[in-house]
Amino acid sequence: MVPMQIHIVYAHPHAASLNAALRDEAVRTLEALGHTATVSDLYAMGWKAVADYDDFGPTENAAFMPAAGEAWERGTIAPDITAEQAKLLAADLVILQFPLWWYTVPAILKGWIDRVFTNGFGYGTSRDWPRFGDGVLAGKRAMVVVTTGAAESHLSDRGVNGDIDSLLFPLQHGVLFYTGMQVLPPVVVTGAHPGFGESDYADAVKELRSRLETVAESAPIAYRKQAEDYDADRRLKPGLEPEGATGFALHVA
Amino acid sequence: MVPMQIHIVYAHPHAASLNAALRDEAVRTLEALGHTATVSDLYAMGWKAVADYDDFGPTENAAFMPAAGEAWERGTIAPDITAEQAKLLAADLVILQFPLWWYTVPAILKGWIDRVFTNGFGYGTSRDWPRFGDGVLAGKRAMVVVTTGAAESHLSDRGVNGDIDSLLFPLQHGVLFYTGMQVLPPVVVTGAHPGFGESDYADAVKELRSRLETVAESAPIAYRKQAEDYDADRRLKPGLEPEGATGFALHVA
Repeated sequence: MVPMQIHIVYAHPHAASLNAALRDEAVRTLEALGHTATVSDLYAMGWKAVADYDDFGPTENAAFMPAAGEAWERGTIAPDITAEQAKLLAADLVILQFPLWWYTVPAILKGWIDRVFTNGFGYGTSRDWPRFGDGVLAGKRAMVVVTTGAAESHLSDRGVNGDIDSLLFPLQHGVLFYTGMQVLPPVVVTGAHPGFGESDYADAVKELRSRLETVAESAPIAYRKQAEDYDADRRLKPGLEPEGATGFALHVA
Repeated sequence: MVPMQIHIVYAHPHAASLNAALRDEAVRTLEALGHTATVSDLYAMGWKAVADYDDFGPTENAAFMPAAGEAWERGTIAPDITAEQAKLLAADLVILQFPLWWYTVPAILKGWIDRVFTNGFGYGTSRDWPRFGDGVLAGKRAMVVVTTGAAESHLSDRGVNGDIDSLLFPLQHGVLFYTGMQVLPPVVVTGAHPGFGESDYADAVKELRSRLETVAESAPIAYRKQAEDYDADRRLKPGLEPEGATGFALHVA
């Protein structure tokens, strides 16, 4: 096995939570496998969640996105941001771990995305910016580990919450795959509320371990690549859609 | 026309942005129609984005969600949160206006959702909590006004970004409809980058005005109600799906 550098971006406010236990289990498992694991514990770091002009240093650009781009060019982006970018660039696998709050990431993790994937690093304003399968993090892998109070049926294909693959699409496809990473299927721990018992926890650990043991070779979600599978208007080319697919499912081979 | 109380929750860091101009246009239009409009300008307010234990006052609950619920019961929730809850309760229509950042709301607005819709107000831990068509904000209307740098084709049914209806589903269905509001179709302003010109702006204003003129009577998105259309496991009852629908489209009549 080739040792991997794995970076976990972790967002939960409670130091003794289910999420914290699963994070520690992940680090132990990865290290036992011979990998190296680092963690950005966003709450513990007091991560600044709100993207604003304080991130850029002195700028004459009034508009926000150009000001971000100028700061990137000048190298005046806030050091907490560049430190996170360096961790991503050093990693072979990036894990985002969080509780599902209002069907997406907690604000502190959204703020990590907004600030770290700044103009010039995570995205650009040119029409030929490499994205959706290419990008600054191409060649790396990514995986989401998410807990949710909902029961599995609530997140199933016909579940009232919406199916979990679609709920995670904006994050997995729109952030992780956008920046070039190959996205492994998520580890989803359902029923994470006060009724979550010891056997539920044992099941979750078993699943997490099993997934971590195979991160190097397991098949990523087969998202279509922008550079190959979309026309000049960025629409999926005719005939590439899976039979009967609509919505987000169109974009998976 | 019956005058409405309209509350706009607004999130953009630049005081002279396209978003700011559209917000001011919305307020002028609504007031000219005889409505009353208030605005929570989250950046200007210095809104605290990160939900943490400081929101709750003294608590003996170590776990986060129970601590939130206890604070709700005791009335010790932070006053910036209760002030926002009061604005929502006083409103007939709630507008969320923001730029689409990484295919969802900016972190500061996610933090408004995470903190304002706290345990006991926005959601509860009991299995019979009224939601998805019922809830604390039942009887009110809601509408999203969103700007995005992407071209319309990128967000179309086959667009590489994912279709905009699906991208907005976790917010429109999972937050606004969850808490009982009837959600009007969104106002989506595409192409909002430096190439956005005067005629683009005029078109956006025209569309925004037209939509605001009809907020009282226009038909909401026909999301299925949990109380009527889902079984005990919260799965959509057989036969209720639109023909050929998959993913999020299952949940719209």
